[in-house]
Amino acid sequence: MTQRNFSHTPINLAEKLGRIPDLWQQRVVAEMNDYQFKLVRIEGDFIWHDHPETDEAFIVIEGHLRIDFRDGSVEIGPGEMFVVPKGVQHKPFAEEEVKMMVIEPRGVLNTGNEGGERTAQNDLWI
Amino acid sequence: MTQRNFSHTPINLAEKLGRIPDLWQQRVVAEMNDYQFKLVRIEGDFIWHDHPETDEAFIVIEGHLRIDFRDGSVEIGPGEMFVVPKGVQHKPFAEEEVKMMVIEPRGVLNTGNEGGERTAQNDLWI
Repeated sequence: MTQRNFSHTPINLAEKLGRIPDLWQQRVVAEMNDYQFKLVRIEGDFIWHDHPETDEAFIVIEGHLRIDFRDGSVEIGPGEMFVVPKGVQHKPFAEEEVKMMVIEPRGVLNTGNEGGERTAQNDLWI
Repeated sequence: MTQRNFSHTPINLAEKLGRIPDLWQQRVVAEMNDYQFKLVRIEGDFIWHDHPETDEAFIVIEGHLRIDFRDGSVEIGPGEMFVVPKGVQHKPFAEEEVKMMVIEPRGVLNTGNEGGERTAQNDLWI
């Protein structure tokens, strides 16, 4: 049996979030196979986008996240999660700051295929 | 663009955990592609096992989880997470009840390839 060397240190989400300097700048904290766990602080409005190739999971740690869809919206509070199905257009919104985790395959951009100035740097770790 | 019908209801982790009747019985609350988000309440000792085909992510919601490895251990508290690499033998332990989320591909058993009486029913939703 392979016993790879790896750190025996837990990942504290609040501590990591506290070290992310800017809003909307996602930071990777862990990987599971080809998936990444990313932390991000957001406030205000984002752009409409979708991820044609993958579902996207959100877990809210602090604050209240609203995700708008073309046919409605969902409110996600602390200790709640939601999975946006692939190909579904959505727009995150936070009236006040939200701290959350996003889980999705490595390489997925925050703006999907839309590009533009709101596209965050990808694959940055904290 | 496909806009599948899906529920616009957030998943409240504490509420779901409160409805799991028995310790060690994992319940699926969401899927992301071919991965599942499972909630479980544990207390006491588990068996040594590994998952030869996949990493396994743990997010602790309440309590303190210890995962023993052949060469050490990690303590994971509320709001902390940890990813056990594939093929690494591990044994979860909770001195007092731990409520946690496990994220891994659909079909992975809690006992890996070990089998036996501690193997929980798989793919049960709550």
